[in-house]
Amino acid sequence: MIRIGIVGAGRIARVHAKTVDAHLDAELVFIADPVEDAVKPLAEKYGIRYSLNPDDVFTDAEVDAVIICSPTPLHVEHILKAAKAGKPALCEKPVAMETETVEDLVKKLENLDHKTMLGFNRRFDPTFARMHDMVKAGVVGNVEQVTIISRDPAAPPKEYIAVSGGIFKDMTIHDFDTARFFLGDITSVYAVGQNLDPDLKDTGDFDAAVITLANSQGATATITNSRHCSSGYDQRLEVFGDKATLNGENMRPTQVRVSNGEYTDAKDVYLDFFLERYAQAYALELNEFFAAIKENRQPATSIADGAKALRIAEAAEESARTGKIVYL
Amino acid sequence: MIRIGIVGAGRIARVHAKTVDAHLDAELVFIADPVEDAVKPLAEKYGIRYSLNPDDVFTDAEVDAVIICSPTPLHVEHILKAAKAGKPALCEKPVAMETETVEDLVKKLENLDHKTMLGFNRRFDPTFARMHDMVKAGVVGNVEQVTIISRDPAAPPKEYIAVSGGIFKDMTIHDFDTARFFLGDITSVYAVGQNLDPDLKDTGDFDAAVITLANSQGATATITNSRHCSSGYDQRLEVFGDKATLNGENMRPTQVRVSNGEYTDAKDVYLDFFLERYAQAYALELNEFFAAIKENRQPATSIADGAKALRIAEAAEESARTGKIVYL
Amino acid sequence: MIRIGIVGAGRIARVHAKTVDAHLDAELVFIADPVEDAVKPLAEKYGIRYSLNPDDVFTDAEVDAVIICSPTPLHVEHILKAAKAGKPALCEKPVAMETETVEDLVKKLENLDHKTMLGFNRRFDPTFARMHDMVKAGVVGNVEQVTIISRDPAAPPKEYIAVSGGIFKDMTIHDFDTARFFLGDITSVYAVGQNLDPDLKDTGDFDAAVITLANSQGATATITNSRHCSSGYDQRLEVFGDKATLNGENMRPTQVRVSNGEYTDAKDVYLDFFLERYAQAYALELNEFFAAIKENRQPATSIADGAKALRIAEAAEESARTGKIVYL
Amino acid sequence: MIRIGIVGAGRIARVHAKTVDAHLDAELVFIADPVEDAVKPLAEKYGIRYSLNPDDVFTDAEVDAVIICSPTPLHVEHILKAAKAGKPALCEKPVAMETETVEDLVKKLENLDHKTMLGFNRRFDPTFARMHDMVKAGVVGNVEQVTIISRDPAAPPKEYIAVSGGIFKDMTIHDFDTARFFLGDITSVYAVGQNLDPDLKDTGDFDAAVITLANSQGATATITNSRHCSSGYDQRLEVFGDKATLNGENMRPTQVRVSNGEYTDAKDVYLDFFLERYAQAYALELNEFFAAIKENRQPATSIADGAKALRIAEAAEESARTGKIVYL
Repeated sequence: MIRIGIVGAGRIARVHAKTVDAHLDAELVFIADPVEDAVKPLAEKYGIRYSLNPDDVFTDAEVDAVIICSPTPLHVEHILKAAKAGKPALCEKPVAMETETVEDLVKKLENLDHKTMLGFNRRFDPTFARMHDMVKAGVVGNVEQVTIISRDPAAPPKEYIAVSGGIFKDMTIHDFDTARFFLGDITSVYAVGQNLDPDLKDTGDFDAAVITLANSQGATATITNSRHCSSGYDQRLEVFGDKATLNGENMRPTQVRVSNGEYTDAKDVYLDFFLERYAQAYALELNEFFAAIKENRQPATSIADGAKALRIAEAAEESARTGKIVYL
Repeated sequence: MIRIGIVGAGRIARVHAKTVDAHLDAELVFIADPVEDAVKPLAEKYGIRYSLNPDDVFTDAEVDAVIICSPTPLHVEHILKAAKAGKPALCEKPVAMETETVEDLVKKLENLDHKTMLGFNRRFDPTFARMHDMVKAGVVGNVEQVTIISRDPAAPPKEYIAVSGGIFKDMTIHDFDTARFFLGDITSVYAVGQNLDPDLKDTGDFDAAVITLANSQGATATITNSRHCSSGYDQRLEVFGDKATLNGENMRPTQVRVSNGEYTDAKDVYLDFFLERYAQAYALELNEFFAAIKENRQPATSIADGAKALRIAEAAEESARTGKIVYL
Repeated sequence: MIRIGIVGAGRIARVHAKTVDAHLDAELVFIADPVEDAVKPLAEKYGIRYSLNPDDVFTDAEVDAVIICSPTPLHVEHILKAAKAGKPALCEKPVAMETETVEDLVKKLENLDHKTMLGFNRRFDPTFARMHDMVKAGVVGNVEQVTIISRDPAAPPKEYIAVSGGIFKDMTIHDFDTARFFLGDITSVYAVGQNLDPDLKDTGDFDAAVITLANSQGATATITNSRHCSSGYDQRLEVFGDKATLNGENMRPTQVRVSNGEYTDAKDVYLDFFLERYAQAYALELNEFFAAIKENRQPATSIADGAKALRIAEAAEESARTGKIVYL
Repeated sequence: MIRIGIVGAGRIARVHAKTVDAHLDAELVFIADPVEDAVKPLAEKYGIRYSLNPDDVFTDAEVDAVIICSPTPLHVEHILKAAKAGKPALCEKPVAMETETVEDLVKKLENLDHKTMLGFNRRFDPTFARMHDMVKAGVVGNVEQVTIISRDPAAPPKEYIAVSGGIFKDMTIHDFDTARFFLGDITSVYAVGQNLDPDLKDTGDFDAAVITLANSQGATATITNSRHCSSGYDQRLEVFGDKATLNGENMRPTQVRVSNGEYTDAKDVYLDFFLERYAQAYALELNEFFAAIKENRQPATSIADGAKALRIAEAAEESARTGKIVYL
C-alpha cells in the first residue's frame, strides 16, 4: 500500500482523495492546508490526520508519496520539496505561468533523484488513451492531420480570466499537450485569436481561437477553442493517418435517443464540464502515478511536458498578437 | 434494348415509366389504360404510343415485356395474358387478395413457358440487399433472430382501409416477404392485433400489430407494425446471428445533425413514405427484371413468393382474431 | 448516517459494500457470512465488524438497515427477519424461484411494519430511468409498443443453467420487470423458446426466446433474448408512443470511432456484462433505498414487483412449452 | 420549356445531359464538341442535333440557354459568347486559372445584359444547403467557427496534378467557396502546405493542406485537405454559432451497420467520389439555373464568386510558400 499525503484541500483535492480512498494500491493518510474549514472536514471524512502547515506533508514519516493540489504559485516550491524529501509527487497543472520558471525547475530536478508526474489528465482519458494505443499499434499508419475541437460550456467569471494567464495557457494548454501526445515536438505555431463575446471584450483576452501546429515531419494539428458552447463541454479529437481515421466523440450522461415530429435520434447534451467529462481520466492518472512508484520508474507525464506545452502557449499568444507564425 | 409496355397509368406506372425511360437496357414504347386523362399525358411525356384497351399491351408486336400496374383485381388476368403471349411480365404486388387465387395462378403458370416477376421491391433496396448478401457470404453465421420494425407515417383514409384486405395483407405483407427473404419458409405465426387509434376503431381493422414468426430450424422473426409514426416512415431491420448482427437503419433527406442547448446530433425526420424511401429499390427491381430477360432465367421474386407471403398474412389475421398460434 | 449491515459476502455484496463505503448518507458497519474466507477480508478492507452467523445482522444494535446478498434460498427468511427486526432491507433478486412463495411472502409482509426493496436495478439505470421520466412527462404520448432486446455475451456454464430456474426466471425476469415498468400489469404472454446452440441442447432449457406481452389497454412489449451475442452484452430498449419514440442504446468502454478502407465510424464492442453495464444502476438503486429510509416511505421496487415478474416468467415458460398464449 | 444546348461532350456534360433530359422545365436540343466520337453517341442517345463546331451552340436559334462543359481554357471565351448572344449560361468551374483573367471577365460582363451562373455545385447539396438555410433562419445564432474537412479518396495521376494549377486552385477552391457561403468575404488567409505522400514529392505541389481563414467580423474557417483518405471521399462541414452547432456528415451507399466481436455499428465506407457524393447537388444546381431563367434574375452563384474563391486560392498558395499570413 502506497501511503498518500495531499497538500491542498480544494476541489481537485477532493476528487483525488475519493479516488485514493477507493484504490486497492494506495491509502490516504495525511492532508495539509492552511484553511482549517477546508482541510478538517476532509480529514474527518476519511478518518486521517491533517495539518495546517503544508510543509508537513513533505516531512511526515508515514507519507510515501504526495499529491500536490496547492495553488499554482506554490507548485514549483512543493515539487522541489517533495523531490528533496525523496517522495514521489503528482502535481496538478499548470506547474507555473511562465516557461522559464518551469524550464528552470526541470533543470533543478535533473540533479535530484525524483519521481515527478504532471497532471495532464487527458492523456489518461479512456477514449484518447485508446486512440493513442491504436496509433502506436500502427492502426492509423502515419499520423498526418490531428483535429482538436475543444469548447467550454460557458465562459468563466471575468475575475478568473484576469488571472488565468490568457486562453492559451489556461484552456488550450490541454490541447497543446494532446497535440504533442500524437505529434511529438511542435516546430511551428500560428494562432488566430477571436473576440466574439461582447461581454468579454474588455478582458483583454481572446474568448475563442484557432491554432495550427506543425511538427518537423510536416504533420499538422488544428485546434479550435471557444469559451462557450450551446451543447455543453465539447471535446472531440480526430487523428487522420494514411491507413485509418480515428474519432474521439463527446460523452453524454445517458444513452437515450429521442425521435419525434421535428427530429430523430437526438442525444443528450454533453457532460457539463471537466470534472464529469474527465472523471475517469483523473482516476486513471492516479493509476499511472501508483504504477510508476511500484515499478520504480518515471511517470508518463513529466514536468518537461508541462514546459513544452507552456512554450507552445506562449508562441500561440505571440502569434495571435503579431499575426506572424512563430517557429520553435 | 428491351421494349417495354406498361398496363395501367397510375402512380406506380409513372415511377416505372421514368426508370425505364432512363435505363440503358430498356426503352418505353407503349402504355395502355382505359382512363384517357391518365394515359395520354404519360404517353405524350415520353413520346410513345398508347391505347385505351389494356389488352393491347399483350398483343402489341413491338412490346417485348410488360410491366403490370393495373388495379389488383386485374393482376391475375394480366399475368396470364402476358404469360400466354410469351412476354415476360413484372407485376406489382399484391397478386390478389386470397391465397387460393394466387396458388391457383401459380399452378396455371407451371404449364406455361413464362417469365413472371412479383414486385417485392424491398428485396432490392440497397440496404436490405446488402444485408442479404452478407448473410449469404457467411458474415452473420446462422441467422437466429430477425427483428423488423415497420411503421407508416400516418394512417390511410378509412375508405382505403375498408378495401385494403386488412393490415396484414396490406402493410405487413412486405415484412412477411422480408422475413422469408432471411428465414426461408415460415412454419408458425402468432399475431397480436392492436387498436390504438380511436379514429380507426370502427374500421374493423387493426391499426398496429406485433407478429412472431418461426421457421423449421427454430429461427424467429418479430415484426412490429403501426399505421402511424411521429418521425415519418420508420423502416428498420435487424438480422442477428451467432457471428454478427446487422442493422438496416432509416433514411433521411439530408446528413445534417443539429446540436444546441436541448439536444445534440439530432438528425432529420425520416424520408416520408415508400416512394421516397424505396425509390432506389423500385429502380433496382427493374434492373433484375431486365437482367432476367437478358439472361433468359426466372426473376428473383416469383408469384409463388407472393402466395407464401399472403398465406402468412392470412395466418396472422387468424391468429390475431383467435388468439391462437397458427401452424403452416 | 444510515448504518448498513450486509448479509452475504459474495460478488454482489462486494459491489454494494464499495458503494455504501463511498456514500455520503450511509456507512458500512457490519457484514455476516458463514464463509470466513469471504467475509473476513471484506470486513478488514472496510475496517468493520463481521460475524459467521448471518442472523447477527438482523439483531446487531448498530445496524440500521440491511442489504441481503445471501443465496436465493435464504432470501425469504432473511427478508422476514429484517422486517420483524424493524430494519429496512434491500434484497437482491430473485426473491425465490416460485411465484407462490413470493406471493406468500407479500402477504406476510402486509402484516408487518416493514420497508423492503427488491433489487430490480435496471429501473435505476440512468438511460432507462430517463426514458421512464420522459414517458411520465408526456413526451412520448401514449405508450403503444415497447421493444426490448437483451442478449448476454456468452452462455453461463451448464451447471449454472441446471439450477437457474430456466431462461425466463433467470434472464428474462429483468426484461419482464422493464416491460412492467413501462406498461404496468401484463395480461397476456406468448413465448417462443429457441434451442440454437448445439452445446446447450441437453440442458433442457431454452438458449434464446422471443416473448410478446400485452397489457389491458392493448399496448405490447416484445422481448428478444439470447444467451450469446458476438458484440457483448446487448441491452437495448425502445419505447414507441404516438408522440415520440425513445431508444436506449448500448454502452461502450470508450467513445472511439474507427474508419478505414473496410468500414467507417466503427465503435467499441459493448461493455462486457451486467456488473459493468449496470454499474451506475447498482449505485443509484442504493440511493433510492437510502432515500426511502430517510423519507420514511416504501422504496420504488417492492417484493410484489418481484412476484409479478415471476408470474410472467412462469407464464412464459408455460407458453413456450405448450405453444399457447397464457392469460394472467 | 427551356431549350438547352451543351458545349463540350465529356464526363460532366454527360451528367448534365442526363439531368436536363429528365427535367420537367427543360429539354436538351443541341450539343457541340469538336471530337465526333464523344459528341455523336451523346446526341444519338438523346435524339438531338449536334455540331463539331462549338460556336454553333451560341448561334443556334433553337437554343435558349447554354451549359458550358468545354475545357477550362475556353471558359472565358464561351461565357462571353453566350452573354453576347443573349443566352443564359451555366459554366463549370473553374472559370480560369488566374484571378486577373476572371476579374477582367467580371468587368466585361458588367457591360452586357447577361445571366451567367458558375457551377459551384456544393452550395446546392441538400445537406450544405439545409445548413445554410438554418443559418439564415437564425438557428445557429452568430456563425463563429466553420470547420471543413475535405479529403479525396486517392491522388489523381501526376500528369493531372502538373496542369491542375495546384491543390488550392484545384481542390480547395470548393472549400473556399463553402467558407464564403457561410462567412462572406474573407480578409485573411494562412495556409500550411503538406508533402506527406512520397510518390507525389516531385510534383512540386502540396498533397495536403490546412488553411485558416477569417472574415472582417473575426469569424474563422479552418479547412483540412488531403489528396487521400482510406475511407473514401471525406466531406464534412461544421458550422458553430453561439446558439447551435450544425454538422454535415458523409454519405454512404447503404444504411447498413455491422456489429461483431471486433467492433459495433460499423458503417459503409463513403460514397467514392464527387460524381456520386454530389449527384443531387449537380441536379439541384440545374434547378437553380432554370429557375433564374424563368424568374429573369441572376443565378445564385456568379462569375464574381469564382473570382473571389480564386483570389483566396492564390493567397493560400502564397501563404504556404512564404510562411506568412496574406491579407485580402
